[in-house]
Amino acid sequence: MVEFRVFQSTKKIILQAKMFTSILRNSYNTNRVAFNAIRSFSTAQKPINVNSLVVEKTKQPLPKFTDKNKLIFGKEFSDHMLEIEWDINNGWSAPKISAYHNLSLPPSASVFHYAIECFEGMKAYKDKEGKVRLFRPMENMKRFATSAERLCLPSFDKEAVIELIKKLVLLDQDWIPEGKGYSLYLRPTLIATQKSLGVSASNSALMFVIASPVGPYYPEGFKPVRLLADDRFIRAWVGGSGAFKLGSNYAPTIFPQLDAAKKGYSQVLWLLNDYVTEVGTMNMFVLWKNNQGELELITPPLTDGTILPGVTRDSILKLAQQWGEFKVSEKNFTMSELAKAIKEGRVKEAFGAGTAAIVSPIKSINYKGEEYPIPIDAAKGAGPLTSRIADTIMGIQYGEIPSEWSVVLN
Amino acid sequence: MVEFRVFQSTKKIILQAKMFTSILRNSYNTNRVAFNAIRSFSTAQKPINVNSLVVEKTKQPLPKFTDKNKLIFGKEFSDHMLEIEWDINNGWSAPKISAYHNLSLPPSASVFHYAIECFEGMKAYKDKEGKVRLFRPMENMKRFATSAERLCLPSFDKEAVIELIKKLVLLDQDWIPEGKGYSLYLRPTLIATQKSLGVSASNSALMFVIASPVGPYYPEGFKPVRLLADDRFIRAWVGGSGAFKLGSNYAPTIFPQLDAAKKGYSQVLWLLNDYVTEVGTMNMFVLWKNNQGELELITPPLTDGTILPGVTRDSILKLAQQWGEFKVSEKNFTMSELAKAIKEGRVKEAFGAGTAAIVSPIKSINYKGEEYPIPIDAAKGAGPLTSRIADTIMGIQYGEIPSEWSVVLN
Repeated sequence: MVEFRVFQSTKKIILQAKMFTSILRNSYNTNRVAFNAIRSFSTAQKPINVNSLVVEKTKQPLPKFTDKNKLIFGKEFSDHMLEIEWDINNGWSAPKISAYHNLSLPPSASVFHYAIECFEGMKAYKDKEGKVRLFRPMENMKRFATSAERLCLPSFDKEAVIELIKKLVLLDQDWIPEGKGYSLYLRPTLIATQKSLGVSASNSALMFVIASPVGPYYPEGFKPVRLLADDRFIRAWVGGSGAFKLGSNYAPTIFPQLDAAKKGYSQVLWLLNDYVTEVGTMNMFVLWKNNQGELELITPPLTDGTILPGVTRDSILKLAQQWGEFKVSEKNFTMSELAKAIKEGRVKEAFGAGTAAIVSPIKSINYKGEEYPIPIDAAKGAGPLTSRIADTIMGIQYGEIPSEWSVVLN
Repeated sequence: MVEFRVFQSTKKIILQAKMFTSILRNSYNTNRVAFNAIRSFSTAQKPINVNSLVVEKTKQPLPKFTDKNKLIFGKEFSDHMLEIEWDINNGWSAPKISAYHNLSLPPSASVFHYAIECFEGMKAYKDKEGKVRLFRPMENMKRFATSAERLCLPSFDKEAVIELIKKLVLLDQDWIPEGKGYSLYLRPTLIATQKSLGVSASNSALMFVIASPVGPYYPEGFKPVRLLADDRFIRAWVGGSGAFKLGSNYAPTIFPQLDAAKKGYSQVLWLLNDYVTEVGTMNMFVLWKNNQGELELITPPLTDGTILPGVTRDSILKLAQQWGEFKVSEKNFTMSELAKAIKEGRVKEAFGAGTAAIVSPIKSINYKGEEYPIPIDAAKGAGPLTSRIADTIMGIQYGEIPSEWSVVLN
């Protein structure tokens, strides 16, 4: 094509790419879409009613884990699950907690064909006094609701779903392994169940919550990871759906992740035309000395719809702002900028952030065939800020540090 | 950001955007990923064995449609379905054809959480002599296999799956409504069934095929559609997975489609930084007088991984090339170019192409608030080329025009 001739060198192409991406990313905010306005449901529809909850306790308790140190993430599930059905004529049916069981769905259900599905990841913790706690559950519910709106799935009373999750957790509280770092992972999920192959908004849906006992992400201290910045794949793009927790954001990442693993890297560092966006299934943070010589914690902003608004991400930003010890910025940065800063010794720490690990320290990034090492405290396996964040958030989660973020259930 | 200052006008920004997209789209081909090489399965794994097929005929036949003219796409299903299970240790289990039934899957199955699912759309036709026919089934199977590879799902013997589909269709041939335009829509689907919340390649899967009797897309002649070229949403992007028939490509399109419908448009015309890519769930074709004054049929090329390689798309390109009456090009074009050509009276016809409708004539496109009308033969509801393509492909599908593309089953 004729436009090729305009450019003289690869360097210039990259520069153009950055310029364009920058414009696109910065301009997106202004014409943002009001996703919640698209589908109006009848006011006759029933909302979720906590008082109509039906609890059918299991008659065949599942074999519980005998060694909490052998738990594998998301493999074992607790005795019970929560289900709430929805259809466009009647709204939400009576919530039900019953024995963990298979779902029975017609093969035509749209969840199997068009990936109309979204989910959340959150945890229940048992503190030293045996009290059960959740961490910022309303943040998960808010995001769950926006994901549902993005898929034209029904809205719901967020408080009601939290109440129902609390009841499930309390019923299965023996499934929360004891000890710091252990928890019961909760997976609220919403799937489209419409029995039709037409590509359209679903007129029926099922919300369910399952619970899986999990051990600490790092049972023996941090294990810093090596990343592959693979520019062949883009996780999310401006005008796509990367800001929502949809199943559809995950399927295409399996291949790049497996490819990175085969090459000896733990995770993919996702780039968008050289801009750093996320790491594996986590948000990305860097502590560096910026070009102005200031110590600064940076993470990409939520403005252009390519970044998942992580609850851990938000918590880290709020904590760091409270500490007030260094600059805290949500801003775009490129892998080229990051590579340059690493070479100049300006990068102090880098880590991923998410519910599963809280923080996952990064020890190096492979970018265009070159390895960029990031400082790590060899004894701890993480830098001081990374450790401090992990300690603080865990302290809050297990009730050792008083905070509104930790919600006691009993 | 500093890069903003480089640009002086919106026009220049659009120009830059086009340049960059052009580079990205044209350069992608060279570093294309070998998706099939990622996962090696044990040679001890069993392939799909047609001879081990188990057929359990239904004891409760479903109520069959009484009026073939009242069929709604994908709402009713035939008496039987085909299922083949796979797991990483044993490979493919014995195929089974049995009564249409619900699937029973654990709520932890990865298809519900990470959208690890892909599908195909194809049809069985009954010709005037009562013979049952498929249209280019191997093309669907090839694409099905590449979709599976993209998701790290297992490979399979394509011939074997076609044989099994033939057996299902012949068993349920009474479900194929008679008459031209009527057919039995077939939906091969492959879903990940791994019982784990870890985001990883699935170690188990289920392939199933269901069949739905459908009427003609246009029972009373063509109904040309109005499109909304909505630049707020991007269906697929370079480095994404738009070239594969994955469920994950569909979920994010529900909202834009509903939004377009509310505004009075039948379909979204998908743009990628102003480049025309697809229309709704179809490939996009334009017949125009190009800048050189040549009559030319154009459709975006498959080179950058953003376009679904449609079987109907491929059939149209091959037919038009055989006819040799005008230039046939797979090339990128922007909506600005198309709008300019419409204004200059150079656009003769435009249509979408896919299995459901074969061709769907377009009568206008809304772009940046302006309506761009495309010529339509008012009596027929479609231009002469659009009609001719529909007639030719239907002629082949129903055995009236001899062709290798039509495969007789009995």
